[in-house]
Amino acid sequence: MTETVALSTAPSTALLTDHYELTMLQASLADGTAHRRSVFELFGRRLPDGRRYGVVAGVNRLLDALERFRFDEQTIAFLADRGIVDQPTRDWLADFRFSGDIAGYADGEIFFPGSPVLVVESSFAEAVLLETVFLSILNHDSAVASAASRMTWWAGGRPCIEMGSRRTHEEAAVASALAAYIAGFATTSNLEAARRFGIPSAGTAAHSFTLLHDTERDAFVSQVDALGKGTTLLVDTYDLTEAVKTAIEITGPELGAVRLDSGDLPSLAGQVRDQLDALGATKTRIIVTSDLDEYQIAALAPAAVDGYGVGTSLVTGSGYPTCGFVYKLVAREDADGTMLPVAKKSPDKISIGGRKYALRRRSAAGVAELELIGVGERPQDDGDDRELLKPLVEAGKIVGRTTPAESQAHHLKVRDELPRSASQLSRGEPAIPTEYIGDLKTRNPFAPRSAI
Amino acid sequence: MTETVALSTAPSTALLTDHYELTMLQASLADGTAHRRSVFELFGRRLPDGRRYGVVAGVNRLLDALERFRFDEQTIAFLADRGIVDQPTRDWLADFRFSGDIAGYADGEIFFPGSPVLVVESSFAEAVLLETVFLSILNHDSAVASAASRMTWWAGGRPCIEMGSRRTHEEAAVASALAAYIAGFATTSNLEAARRFGIPSAGTAAHSFTLLHDTERDAFVSQVDALGKGTTLLVDTYDLTEAVKTAIEITGPELGAVRLDSGDLPSLAGQVRDQLDALGATKTRIIVTSDLDEYQIAALAPAAVDGYGVGTSLVTGSGYPTCGFVYKLVAREDADGTMLPVAKKSPDKISIGGRKYALRRRSAAGVAELELIGVGERPQDDGDDRELLKPLVEAGKIVGRTTPAESQAHHLKVRDELPRSASQLSRGEPAIPTEYIGDLKTRNPFAPRSAI
Repeated sequence: MTETVALSTAPSTALLTDHYELTMLQASLADGTAHRRSVFELFGRRLPDGRRYGVVAGVNRLLDALERFRFDEQTIAFLADRGIVDQPTRDWLADFRFSGDIAGYADGEIFFPGSPVLVVESSFAEAVLLETVFLSILNHDSAVASAASRMTWWAGGRPCIEMGSRRTHEEAAVASALAAYIAGFATTSNLEAARRFGIPSAGTAAHSFTLLHDTERDAFVSQVDALGKGTTLLVDTYDLTEAVKTAIEITGPELGAVRLDSGDLPSLAGQVRDQLDALGATKTRIIVTSDLDEYQIAALAPAAVDGYGVGTSLVTGSGYPTCGFVYKLVAREDADGTMLPVAKKSPDKISIGGRKYALRRRSAAGVAELELIGVGERPQDDGDDRELLKPLVEAGKIVGRTTPAESQAHHLKVRDELPRSASQLSRGEPAIPTEYIGDLKTRNPFAPRSAI
Repeated sequence: MTETVALSTAPSTALLTDHYELTMLQASLADGTAHRRSVFELFGRRLPDGRRYGVVAGVNRLLDALERFRFDEQTIAFLADRGIVDQPTRDWLADFRFSGDIAGYADGEIFFPGSPVLVVESSFAEAVLLETVFLSILNHDSAVASAASRMTWWAGGRPCIEMGSRRTHEEAAVASALAAYIAGFATTSNLEAARRFGIPSAGTAAHSFTLLHDTERDAFVSQVDALGKGTTLLVDTYDLTEAVKTAIEITGPELGAVRLDSGDLPSLAGQVRDQLDALGATKTRIIVTSDLDEYQIAALAPAAVDGYGVGTSLVTGSGYPTCGFVYKLVAREDADGTMLPVAKKSPDKISIGGRKYALRRRSAAGVAELELIGVGERPQDDGDDRELLKPLVEAGKIVGRTTPAESQAHHLKVRDELPRSASQLSRGEPAIPTEYIGDLKTRNPFAPRSAI
């Protein structure tokens, strides 16, 4: 048996929290409002500039984090030492178990401006504590999945390989690998992601391996001896044409693939394809990996390329490393026990009070037409509305887990519902409009004007 | 005593690794080249577009990760189950302990294009395994520190508060808080960072706390009861002028601060300053926190503002979430035991073979003039060159740890050496040029041309 614990399961997530959540807890416990039933919603006010849709990822990681959100003795001792909260608050925290309900969009689901990606209903005390860790996970993972989905869409049937670990925080790398997989990537280079989530990993050799050897031939022979003729040989360390010739001399036509990591990829790929074909290696694939993003992948569509390795642009959300999701109190119990919608009065930061429902309205042909978001009674459904909020947690019990493979399948299915224009890389409006319906008047206790 | 373990110390970091590092290990163990003495260098080819300097962060985290880089039984079992490497490789990994030397720029040091931020010398096998985790840590943390330093420079004496946790991966958030602190931030909102690194944390209340209460006055009274009159009240949930009036009615002139989180900050800050002064609260500070970056901070310099809370733009590197550092084999032992400089031959990705030294040349007045990087013999030093590479690991033993406070002090000191133009926010060239000296011919064993 092993003595250490997996990175994902052991440690408490309770302090992945902003200081002010605990000070709010202390004040509200003291005045009694901590126990008011409250609804928080997590949503984005807009998509990144020019994007047509976003992709939710991180929901299963969020459920894992919730399970490990416990204030153990060490954590309580830290809060006491630093004087962050008082003794009654520490006592409350020591017993903390989330007992409320959470509904949310599934991993792999598409989202639009205003989509209530997560709805948390519980006491104020329980729900406010989870703000930061929930936002961290969904803002990061969904940013990566949103970029990844554009890449896999444009890659068509060609596999995309996630290899961005080195360009992002070491744990963000693990989460990015999962987010990419959910959005249709075939494999990851990240071994911790392979272990933790069970997704496929792949890798062969870097330039350093060739440079380590006295000759490129020595390096290729060594790699083929170790990994077999089905391996991928990196052919651009010195002279590309020489390398391809040497590679096929060693393996014959059974060589799995060659990899190009620099230069003018479309023309080099064509040249290598011709050379491989002339050498009889017609089944040897060509993998390209040099600073690709969705635009490069689209540009390579007509090229003699069989797969894409994507790094930096994937893990940094291709220009948009965060989704800008916020987590807002939208309704809470009044002194007499009735639920009141609430919203901040701010002209530049729109929030809509009241607990939302969310439906994707589709045409009879199954094409998405509207993101319907509302408060109160739902509209008539002629059978083409798809319910977007799924139960994730019920009375503190986690009920909504999905596997990475299920999440990927869900993504590919719901992406297929979008109008074809959603794949456009040119800047433009969201693929479908968001429509608010129902009673949206925010009954702000101070200023009874609509928040919209 | 506690039963759980801190997030930072327990788990193995061994699989925060790209798959190909293990396949290269297997092949090189089989052919014997794994044991060749090798030098890898970590460096960036350029600064982000328009930046004048970069700031190193992550070095201490890297040393922590190295200490926990162990292939425990669970990890070995995973590699066996998946068939990632063969039995001899797994046996070698089970015994893995890094036994080489590492030198590097210190946390808080300034870097420029080509600066050899980290130099790892060991066997190929030992050094290649660390590639991904080292790059992940330094690429992320240095990107955040590089953005943070521009913010604290322009903030002048006003404190900067790190509050970006919600907009980045939950563990990247913890690392970002440390990177920001190294670059001069005063506090963080992130409690795990406060616990793990001992840096100061701060926080008071969000809009949800005001919305939870029946009136804004109830919320303010509750917060002041819990946190004292020195607290910071958030005054823009409803009507700003009303809120400031209510706040001072409750606390009198002893109120610590008010926080503005929306709207036209320079004009609102002036208006609130006037109101506070008229109410006698001349010492009550004004903190602003709405989507700030270094440009906003610079623009707020003349405004009546006493502190800045910075979130999204900090944790995303203000447009550049990764440094683009690479980790390249630059020298390795030949079959006969002599060290050979090596480099990939690529027109678009410059690497220079050979182990580097690095010096910051300063004028007699102490102003930085050149980043001197070379291979071979060092130039004459008239006493104004500062050695940039510090011993971090010697024969496997960690010797180079620094505390966050030391790193921050180092940063502020070495930033002060830069020419004043380094603070410019307009796009331009690095603050000082990088000069390569000495014997830079890369003795590429196949193509004896210079790699430059």
